[in-house]
Amino acid sequence: MSDNVVPIKRAIGADEPSLSPILSLTATAMNSVNQIILQRMQSEIPLIPALAGHLIAGGGKRMRPMLTLAGAELLGYEGTRHHLLAAAVEFIHTATLLHDDVVDGSETRRGKEAANIVFGNPATVLVGDFLFSRAFELMVEDGSLKVLKILSSASATIAQGEVDQLTAQRKIETSEDRYLGIIGAKTAALFAAASRIAAVVAEKDEAAERALDDYGRNLGVAFQLIDDAIDYDSDAAEMGKDRGDDFREGKMTLPVILAYARGTPEERQFWEEAIAGFRDTDEDLAHAVELIGRHDCISATRERARHFAQKACDALAMFPDSKARRAMVEAAQFAVSRGY
Amino acid sequence: MSDNVVPIKRAIGADEPSLSPILSLTATAMNSVNQIILQRMQSEIPLIPALAGHLIAGGGKRMRPMLTLAGAELLGYEGTRHHLLAAAVEFIHTATLLHDDVVDGSETRRGKEAANIVFGNPATVLVGDFLFSRAFELMVEDGSLKVLKILSSASATIAQGEVDQLTAQRKIETSEDRYLGIIGAKTAALFAAASRIAAVVAEKDEAAERALDDYGRNLGVAFQLIDDAIDYDSDAAEMGKDRGDDFREGKMTLPVILAYARGTPEERQFWEEAIAGFRDTDEDLAHAVELIGRHDCISATRERARHFAQKACDALAMFPDSKARRAMVEAAQFAVSRGY
Repeated sequence: MSDNVVPIKRAIGADEPSLSPILSLTATAMNSVNQIILQRMQSEIPLIPALAGHLIAGGGKRMRPMLTLAGAELLGYEGTRHHLLAAAVEFIHTATLLHDDVVDGSETRRGKEAANIVFGNPATVLVGDFLFSRAFELMVEDGSLKVLKILSSASATIAQGEVDQLTAQRKIETSEDRYLGIIGAKTAALFAAASRIAAVVAEKDEAAERALDDYGRNLGVAFQLIDDAIDYDSDAAEMGKDRGDDFREGKMTLPVILAYARGTPEERQFWEEAIAGFRDTDEDLAHAVELIGRHDCISATRERARHFAQKACDALAMFPDSKARRAMVEAAQFAVSRGY
Repeated sequence: MSDNVVPIKRAIGADEPSLSPILSLTATAMNSVNQIILQRMQSEIPLIPALAGHLIAGGGKRMRPMLTLAGAELLGYEGTRHHLLAAAVEFIHTATLLHDDVVDGSETRRGKEAANIVFGNPATVLVGDFLFSRAFELMVEDGSLKVLKILSSASATIAQGEVDQLTAQRKIETSEDRYLGIIGAKTAALFAAASRIAAVVAEKDEAAERALDDYGRNLGVAFQLIDDAIDYDSDAAEMGKDRGDDFREGKMTLPVILAYARGTPEERQFWEEAIAGFRDTDEDLAHAVELIGRHDCISATRERARHFAQKACDALAMFPDSKARRAMVEAAQFAVSRGY
């Protein structure tokens, strides 16, 4: 145990935590990853790079491949195997985004029209399949069965989480634990896998693998909690997705779960109708935001996120202090502070 | 070269070729494969086995895993590794069927309501993703990087073929060669891979791998040609899919390509309008079937299929005569005779 992991609460409020350290830590490697991504999304079928490029070139934070790169830095790995694997991770993520947009009927993604709107659902589903297959081709090219195992298992978990989320949709009775199970699968599993494979590539022991897995998993949960809070946060400066999408789709996220639990009988009646799909006007959304604010459900959700971010930081305590560790800690701090 | 490969034309018309020999050759192993399929499609999320089971339990010929099993018999392989891999092949195929049905908006599949109709598009897309991930988990469990390479590459090829088909849809100018490229990718690539992995598991040389790949690939092309012919064949006893689906979706299959090429100016006008989507009544379909019959385009398509089936049989010539080889030859003969 190292004693110099910065407790997350101390850092917040002092200097504003930022992604800058992790971005500059991984900048050079990310250039290689981006080149691999652009190269490997090519195909003789022009629609494939056109559609994939629409999303991939459209920005995105490259959070997941960044975890692989940062983990490799943390462990002092000096090779380049992880570049290919980080690209594979981003392809898996991109494939799930494309399929999510079809599943949710999304209209925008990353501030522009979603691929399904521009190219239609059929092409979006199929290009997702292509990127997913391509991800496995990249992993096979690397040749580590251990990495293949980690990422194929994460992929199956993601799909199960997505189906579970679909099953819980419009179900007001969804509990906080069930919600945590869903985001643990649909979001955190890939964060965990992306981090973990850095330890595999660096040929570290099981304890290092587990520590990076814990870091990624807890960070992923924190990240998704904040995403879900921002969707109802009237103070939020950042809009991660279309405001009110979760509300209109009847998705049971933590702010709603808490507002329902803390609500008066009359408010609970509102939530039941809203989640069932009978209250979807702009006024209904405004009322939902008001109720969530009234019961402090945004700050409660942020508090939960802070708990998981703290666990993420603590998972790194086994590694000696380094620029990489500090950057990864600050990234976790940033994850819970963003949106203001 | 062996001299006792039965030429395909001699066999047809003598005894009716049948799938029985290959079915009985692979029956015991297929029981194991079916058990693995049922076991590995399970999940804690009940919607997953419900939806997957709807399609998987709904019959299907298990053609692709059968190729893996028959190939293993042909090569005298006595282990059981190929059972897991044959299940992986069927999962990949099932995933593509689920996504195809969403892409095409299919209403029926294998004679019952398609999964997308019963469970909706969102769940169908996501359960497809799950099965696809599960397929890779099975391959990783087996542990052969060579098999992983063959099947991940086939999966990427399938997705490219599907996108290419989408791009060619409603394009009357699609050539026979482009069509062959599409079905080579979307259908024959998995037939080829399913056969080829038998040689990998049996640890045979590159020549044996290539021979089985050729067998599967050519059989796959023949199989798809016949499928596409049956969709317009007024004499067909078997209905592989919804009659007229290809016509209404404006898919450019060989019977249409030939009827357009052989048509009078007036007929070509009809095809241009039909493929563009302006003629989709039952009368239009009947007229299309009539035109295709008038120019012998069904028998021409069947003739093309016979050419590929013959190539499939010839690919087996390097292996000594055996029960397995005879069964595989007869399966190719059956592939082109079915539908009557």
